[in-house]
Amino acid sequence: MSIESVAIIGLGLLGGSIGLAVREHCPSIATTGYDRDPDVRRRARELELVQTVCDTPGEAVKGADLVILCVPVGAMAEAAGDIAGSLAAHAIVSDVGSSKQSVTTALARALPNATIIPAHPVAGTEQSGPEAGFAALFANRWCILTPPEDADRQAVAALAEFWTALGARTQVMDAAHHDLVLAVTSHIPHLIAYTIVGTASDLEDVTRSEVIKYSAGGFRDFTRIAASDPVMWRDVFLSNRDAVLEVLGRFTEDLTALQRAIRSGDGDTLHDLFARTRAIRREVIEEGQDDRRPDFGRGDHVKS
Amino acid sequence: MSIESVAIIGLGLLGGSIGLAVREHCPSIATTGYDRDPDVRRRARELELVQTVCDTPGEAVKGADLVILCVPVGAMAEAAGDIAGSLAAHAIVSDVGSSKQSVTTALARALPNATIIPAHPVAGTEQSGPEAGFAALFANRWCILTPPEDADRQAVAALAEFWTALGARTQVMDAAHHDLVLAVTSHIPHLIAYTIVGTASDLEDVTRSEVIKYSAGGFRDFTRIAASDPVMWRDVFLSNRDAVLEVLGRFTEDLTALQRAIRSGDGDTLHDLFARTRAIRREVIEEGQDDRRPDFGRGDHVKS
Repeated sequence: MSIESVAIIGLGLLGGSIGLAVREHCPSIATTGYDRDPDVRRRARELELVQTVCDTPGEAVKGADLVILCVPVGAMAEAAGDIAGSLAAHAIVSDVGSSKQSVTTALARALPNATIIPAHPVAGTEQSGPEAGFAALFANRWCILTPPEDADRQAVAALAEFWTALGARTQVMDAAHHDLVLAVTSHIPHLIAYTIVGTASDLEDVTRSEVIKYSAGGFRDFTRIAASDPVMWRDVFLSNRDAVLEVLGRFTEDLTALQRAIRSGDGDTLHDLFARTRAIRREVIEEGQDDRRPDFGRGDHVKS
Repeated sequence: MSIESVAIIGLGLLGGSIGLAVREHCPSIATTGYDRDPDVRRRARELELVQTVCDTPGEAVKGADLVILCVPVGAMAEAAGDIAGSLAAHAIVSDVGSSKQSVTTALARALPNATIIPAHPVAGTEQSGPEAGFAALFANRWCILTPPEDADRQAVAALAEFWTALGARTQVMDAAHHDLVLAVTSHIPHLIAYTIVGTASDLEDVTRSEVIKYSAGGFRDFTRIAASDPVMWRDVFLSNRDAVLEVLGRFTEDLTALQRAIRSGDGDTLHDLFARTRAIRREVIEEGQDDRRPDFGRGDHVKS
């Protein structure tokens, strides 16, 4: 099985980046696309995110070997329903959603006869919309495939090959485990960042201007994450509720223990944790998942 | 009053960066330095962080117009005691500590007759030690001065002028307010980052290797902050206990409210917060306190 045409439903950061990455890495694959927002379709045409931007989802997926739904996870069911009548019999249907159990259920319900291989490229930026996409978004990032147990193995292999061609590394995992792992590495970090940015802007005794001015002390990193797409993230938390609440419970316990250590002046407990977490950073860099330069290289353009 | 010589006690990231920034921006100012670690003194000499690295603190501060203590806040009292007998009568004593009330008290006690103007340049990276310093660290960053009420106004002006010459912007604030503001913009963000990195590495059902591999979903940003110097941060939390606990209480309340919203499926509450926090990011960038490029420009070296 070889993929010769891809239809992308939803032309924001992820959908647009897939289109651009296909053009760069697999120029022989034909690309079509659709977005329900006419303005996004217009901009996608100008930016040439895909070869053909269609005005209906049915037109976009017609004859496509692979269809990738790139919409917020809460909109997956509707997007799948919109293409149900137009899919080719052999088409693989996939997605890029950040939670996988709920999406798997929604797609199976909307497309009972289709070959569905859910996936999640762990890549993105805080920006959204068609202008935000770029071809290198997936370079050296992981794309997690969560095929159902009875999935067609050739279809799984074809999808993995597609993502590898775009520069990603692939990993097969069951959907429930994906949802727990991503709750730790993505969902809770976003929830915490949104929270602290909200907390800071609500304080009576500290002005908003002070929060901005002195943000280089650490806070500014959180503002980047907390600038992520609100609809996408609302849907992530609603759709991955159980895993998010589970990990949040662990985090709160750990935070409470540190709070107690601060209150009682227990410096050893603080130091032990702070010394331990350094090693994780080193491993993240060694695994190629972040920039080695101090402060993400922020100072480099002024460094002397 | 004009500063013609500076003594830097503690030659790590901050002390080293001050030395290099003085050399770059104010080459006529003489610099001396001391670190209690002989190995750091050796490396400081090799790196020429200051003109003269001395083997005793007394020798370093002798005759200096300005003495800056660049040690963890828990070590300020001892560092001040070490120079007490050698300070010039006209010397200004300052520091770079991240909490100001406790440092102000410690310095006043150790140096009852000195001119003390505590300060905090809100700048740094996750790295530490003499190799970590660079001259541009303070460019466009804020340096907060927290002079006691009866402080010599000429000394405050001279210190502000010094920091301005190194590229910083200065702001005078009372120490208690500083400690509250920085609890929000720096201390709590660090505490949260250390906590979530610890939580992630302790989970039984998620392997450490998974946490590393999928860190690009947001977690990797936290690992950078959680790689900061353990001794420095232990001391910050112990010395700014009241403000940290106060802000932590607010944060925990806000997080609990979001937890409830997730549990009850209240998408509007989530969306309202997530949409609101975007504006703060915009302001941080407009104020020149962070990189405008998406994802801190991480993708730029591979961007096509």
